[in-house]
Amino acid sequence: MEEKTKITRVVSLIRATGRLHIGHYEGVIKNWVELQGKYPSFFGVADWHALTSRYEESKGIAQDTREIIVDLLACGLDPKKSTIFIQSQIKEHAELYLLLSMITPLGWLERNPTYKEQLRELEERGLQTYGLIGYPVLQAADVLAYKGDGVPIGQDQLPHLELTREITRRFNKLYGNLFKEPTPIFTASPKVPGTDGRKMSKSYGNAIYLSDSAGEVEKKVRPMKTDIARITRKDPGNPEVCPVFDLHKIYTPDEPREWCAAGCRTAGIGCIDCKMVLLDHLQPFLEPIREKRKEILKTPKKVDAIIHQGNEKAAEVAAKTLTEVRSAIGV
Amino acid sequence: MEEKTKITRVVSLIRATGRLHIGHYEGVIKNWVELQGKYPSFFGVADWHALTSRYEESKGIAQDTREIIVDLLACGLDPKKSTIFIQSQIKEHAELYLLLSMITPLGWLERNPTYKEQLRELEERGLQTYGLIGYPVLQAADVLAYKGDGVPIGQDQLPHLELTREITRRFNKLYGNLFKEPTPIFTASPKVPGTDGRKMSKSYGNAIYLSDSAGEVEKKVRPMKTDIARITRKDPGNPEVCPVFDLHKIYTPDEPREWCAAGCRTAGIGCIDCKMVLLDHLQPFLEPIREKRKEILKTPKKVDAIIHQGNEKAAEVAAKTLTEVRSAIGV
Repeated sequence: MEEKTKITRVVSLIRATGRLHIGHYEGVIKNWVELQGKYPSFFGVADWHALTSRYEESKGIAQDTREIIVDLLACGLDPKKSTIFIQSQIKEHAELYLLLSMITPLGWLERNPTYKEQLRELEERGLQTYGLIGYPVLQAADVLAYKGDGVPIGQDQLPHLELTREITRRFNKLYGNLFKEPTPIFTASPKVPGTDGRKMSKSYGNAIYLSDSAGEVEKKVRPMKTDIARITRKDPGNPEVCPVFDLHKIYTPDEPREWCAAGCRTAGIGCIDCKMVLLDHLQPFLEPIREKRKEILKTPKKVDAIIHQGNEKAAEVAAKTLTEVRSAIGV
Repeated sequence: MEEKTKITRVVSLIRATGRLHIGHYEGVIKNWVELQGKYPSFFGVADWHALTSRYEESKGIAQDTREIIVDLLACGLDPKKSTIFIQSQIKEHAELYLLLSMITPLGWLERNPTYKEQLRELEERGLQTYGLIGYPVLQAADVLAYKGDGVPIGQDQLPHLELTREITRRFNKLYGNLFKEPTPIFTASPKVPGTDGRKMSKSYGNAIYLSDSAGEVEKKVRPMKTDIARITRKDPGNPEVCPVFDLHKIYTPDEPREWCAAGCRTAGIGCIDCKMVLLDHLQPFLEPIREKRKEILKTPKKVDAIIHQGNEKAAEVAAKTLTEVRSAIGV
């Protein structure tokens, strides 16, 4: 994790696509937990952003948002160290989105590589909406509403942040230097394949959730895809092309992991043997999160209070920013 | 003016491009004044929308917004009959804009005839922003925030309203029938040319403002462009192609107007003679508005109170709508 010395406020949001899985944990949440001790941090659940991909199945978003907050707390996000909030509860995000939309050239959004990449799929699924192409505008609003100047991202997300930075520069040029340009805090984001070898995602049905029971986790790991070259127990395999081994790299210590790799290459062990070793280390990782989750769920009013307090604190900061924004623009 | 029997709430906004001119009066405000007695009416000044064309010169928007409200009151808009509000003060417009942006296909906006028409000019002026193409989305939010079901428009604005109707249908289909489809109230919008014969517009510098003094009005009317065929006093002209005569059609009674037309066709009178007749009838039309304006400006606190009360009433209605919208979507 690269350290930036001048960062005064970290802001990051996670989209409310559903309960959190280990892909979220390794790519995002783990980093949040580390960052919260180092910087004043604002971490949010982006339920409005969730509408870009699920406006037709929006009914579960509120429930998912709450589950995610429980997941976050279970992972060690600490409301004493972080401000944890829900995007849709801070109306300033919407106002800033509207105001930034007025100064953001459409061409910037059309050229956004993520958007271009998704275009074919989007068209097929009827997702090519005005809100979807404006995703980066709302993202910029999310960060700037708190005058966030540090944004934790993986190296691959740099183009997103670059758009936020461009919008920030344009705002500053038009209306005076109100915002610091948010800088990236590069965080580790190891490859976390889903059980079918594709990217782990709710929509692929290949995710291992932080809230899965030990039994569910085992049920998901046992049939996991492995190196397709290992057709039978006798065929040797290559760990470097095996999704199970990608998980070993994260969860299994060197020695047992090397034992698996060697056994795979020589056909000395079967895939199930290898998966059982993975489970030996994945389960103890998940167990404390699962336990903390259960404990948290025993006192729902405490969760309500944490959400309420986080929202209040976030709203206070965002309100202050918007007062400055309105005065700078003159509207 | 076409009457619709089932309309329960009229909503209309005017963009804060600057002080109101007689083009605004004849095309919009006159109709508002008529409608306020017939329906519960919400009339707003769209200062956020003003940013689409003047985000680079935004500093005057707040002042212009206030001037417009004074103009509206001077024209006879009655805060006892109408709810008069400022768009940017009702944050629900921004939230609904964001929510509607998620369900509005980008293609609908790209095909919007007004947008296509303006495209070349927009590109030249750097106005092709995300907010500009989304103009109709914010327009839909403006109307639906109040559950407006009657929208006064000229026949030429039907495509705009059609987009609002399409967005409404889409919302209702996705989330339940929360909104009545807004219907057009077709209002008279006579041709009001500017002093140079082009459409009257602040940006062309050809406008006669409701707040212009009698002297300013005369100074603007005297050099007005007329039928280009009347090169000298002796050349006969054609009133039907003369901008001055377009104004005669609005402000001058039949008899003197016909006298001008006959004199023009036979070169019996000069253009200045014709313009003086116009002034004889334009000035008495503007005089009471001008006088009422002066009177209103004597008590700025009263204006503050009218704006405050209008905003409060609008916010109350919009807040109720948004509660229903959030619950329908589930965010």
